[in-house]
Amino acid sequence: MVGHRVSFAGGTSRGVVLDLIRTRGPISRVALAELTGLTQATMSTVVRQLLDEGLILETGRGESTGGKPPVMVDIDPYSRFAVGVQLGRESITYVAIDLSGAIVGRTRTPGVGSTEPAEMVGRLAAEIDRTLAGLDIAKRSVLGVGVVAPGPLDLAHGAILRSPHLSAWSNVPIRDMLSTALGLPVLLDNDATAAAIGDFWSGRLDGVTAHATVYMGTGIGAGILIDGIVFRGASSNAGELGQVLAAADDGGPVVLEDVAAPSAVVERARSTASCARWGLTGLDEFDDFRRIALAAAHGDAEAGALIEFSAGHLAAGVLTLANLFDLDSITLAGPGFGVAGPTYVTAISRRLETDLFARMRHGVRVRLSPDVANAAAIGGAALVMQHELAPRTMGLSSLVAR
Amino acid sequence: MVGHRVSFAGGTSRGVVLDLIRTRGPISRVALAELTGLTQATMSTVVRQLLDEGLILETGRGESTGGKPPVMVDIDPYSRFAVGVQLGRESITYVAIDLSGAIVGRTRTPGVGSTEPAEMVGRLAAEIDRTLAGLDIAKRSVLGVGVVAPGPLDLAHGAILRSPHLSAWSNVPIRDMLSTALGLPVLLDNDATAAAIGDFWSGRLDGVTAHATVYMGTGIGAGILIDGIVFRGASSNAGELGQVLAAADDGGPVVLEDVAAPSAVVERARSTASCARWGLTGLDEFDDFRRIALAAAHGDAEAGALIEFSAGHLAAGVLTLANLFDLDSITLAGPGFGVAGPTYVTAISRRLETDLFARMRHGVRVRLSPDVANAAAIGGAALVMQHELAPRTMGLSSLVAR
Repeated sequence: MVGHRVSFAGGTSRGVVLDLIRTRGPISRVALAELTGLTQATMSTVVRQLLDEGLILETGRGESTGGKPPVMVDIDPYSRFAVGVQLGRESITYVAIDLSGAIVGRTRTPGVGSTEPAEMVGRLAAEIDRTLAGLDIAKRSVLGVGVVAPGPLDLAHGAILRSPHLSAWSNVPIRDMLSTALGLPVLLDNDATAAAIGDFWSGRLDGVTAHATVYMGTGIGAGILIDGIVFRGASSNAGELGQVLAAADDGGPVVLEDVAAPSAVVERARSTASCARWGLTGLDEFDDFRRIALAAAHGDAEAGALIEFSAGHLAAGVLTLANLFDLDSITLAGPGFGVAGPTYVTAISRRLETDLFARMRHGVRVRLSPDVANAAAIGGAALVMQHELAPRTMGLSSLVAR
Repeated sequence: MVGHRVSFAGGTSRGVVLDLIRTRGPISRVALAELTGLTQATMSTVVRQLLDEGLILETGRGESTGGKPPVMVDIDPYSRFAVGVQLGRESITYVAIDLSGAIVGRTRTPGVGSTEPAEMVGRLAAEIDRTLAGLDIAKRSVLGVGVVAPGPLDLAHGAILRSPHLSAWSNVPIRDMLSTALGLPVLLDNDATAAAIGDFWSGRLDGVTAHATVYMGTGIGAGILIDGIVFRGASSNAGELGQVLAAADDGGPVVLEDVAAPSAVVERARSTASCARWGLTGLDEFDDFRRIALAAAHGDAEAGALIEFSAGHLAAGVLTLANLFDLDSITLAGPGFGVAGPTYVTAISRRLETDLFARMRHGVRVRLSPDVANAAAIGGAALVMQHELAPRTMGLSSLVAR
């Protein structure tokens, strides 16, 4: 890397310039040329193109650095929108974001439960249309819809293969079904990858090389980004953190999800005598998990021990992830980090400080997503923005249904 | 991926063409153009350049496909050589390979032990010069030397930072020291990455997307290749498989290396009553490990149980690696797989067939390296060949000392 210049890894000059305007605007053409290393002539052409597309605006003159004050450009946030949909068993979250990445609308509906795919697609399309109408967003300014779902997925065919968390679904080509129903481009990706792209699109990963967004919903996954490019592996099923082996109480083999996920914590909680005190209902694992986390936050030692148990196992799994990918940045996202997020951040940070193999070379920045519960939905929308406006993900162009 | 065309990911057309001639030659310009999608005019230019550099030869005419039989080209194996050096505590292996990847010479000397770095560099340079002279290889036809060592390494500075396995060494800039002493380009990399590049250079990874070479020497590491490009992470310390957590007998925290590595097996063996039967000397862990593996191969049940214990733990760690990177190919290399390699292949294959998260999507091909003991040294030499002739590793150009 040369000086403070931005990386073009996997990106086009148009996309990189748009990224810079979005995260650093208002900014002048001269400053953009300096940051990218592109010539002023090239930069003028790129900026002109973005102006013509209506993605950016001239916002007036900046401070003079000697001569005439430069014309500043900035994103036109309301020129484009994208929708993100987070499919979950208990609930479905819809968000609409504008070009700046800000949330302009959010809805939540009951989850997929045992609904059949065809019926579900109809409901999704209707809810998206209703949401856009309510926000007064014209469909022609919507770049597309990013659907996020737990894996395993067949991204090449935009299909949910089977899901331990969406029991009735098997090999459902939801991407094409929803695209046909809506008349909009649709992307499908897993929750962890989407949340990671959301982190990148937000500009929070400036200066990061190897990043993982650890996503704890019903399951536990990791979305991995190398220089902002998604690491996908052989079949786009990389980052299956929940499948990492964990040490069970009795030394037997058990995977991380089975000891650290919210449902595992709730299950342990229900087998204790203190269970009644926390008011667990057994109806919604996240709600029950939240009750335990709240009790822990209020000083309930037994509840605290349950959360610490989960956090300790997750920290061990994240240590493995960090050692294998040599990470320098981690974000925690997903409803599992709703109340007890800081406890998890602390447990993971401590474990990495003590045991990371490369700790002599670099630290790992561990942060909580600014909106843990909606991170995947926001990421789904960001995925569409990135794909349509500033593609950095090799090979993704074949993964969109139009 | 389009049809049967080769991937240009991270490579130059010259490098890709040389790779094809090396692995599929003798081959005609027409066939090369078809395989790469390059025009015949471009192909003629690239082939002319390779002929001018003396890297390839015209070898006569092939079969006619209608018109005049085409002129075939093939690698000139003796036009260039590269040296690989595998630094170990117990022994140092030197190999020289020709352009085809074939080994033309191999030497082994006593290991680094407690030798100081400066003295060791002098010995290495002298041994390399002696080896080349003995093989009648002119130094000007040697592209360079690839030194492989256990991590953690500082690849940007070509330094061994510290090594649990080379105890007296701390932050030693061995790359530049050896390059100065030898007057040749020198590359430094870890044993697992080098062995993986050796697999790629050999052509054994045709059609593979996400590959790991699991290297078991004194420690256990993994060299990861995505489309033939090394996955390095934030500080080139990715793939630390030995640091993955394993389930200890008592459920306590322990890393994979401490239960599965040869030294761990030998230590367990020495605490058994049958220890005397196997003739363990306590002098060389690999020699002792080999004795246990040989006993197991001859039907000794206790020795078999020790190897199976190690193989079971390694299989669990490799399952984690495969789930996180979504691998479709694994090679086992390193002296730890010397005798009992097939037992490890079986244990890993079975575990992946049962438990791989993406097993509905694809299998994972698990193979033993054709030369487990020398794989890292051969890989060190292949690393030089690849870097000098057909670079595919992004950013590596800054990592070589001249």
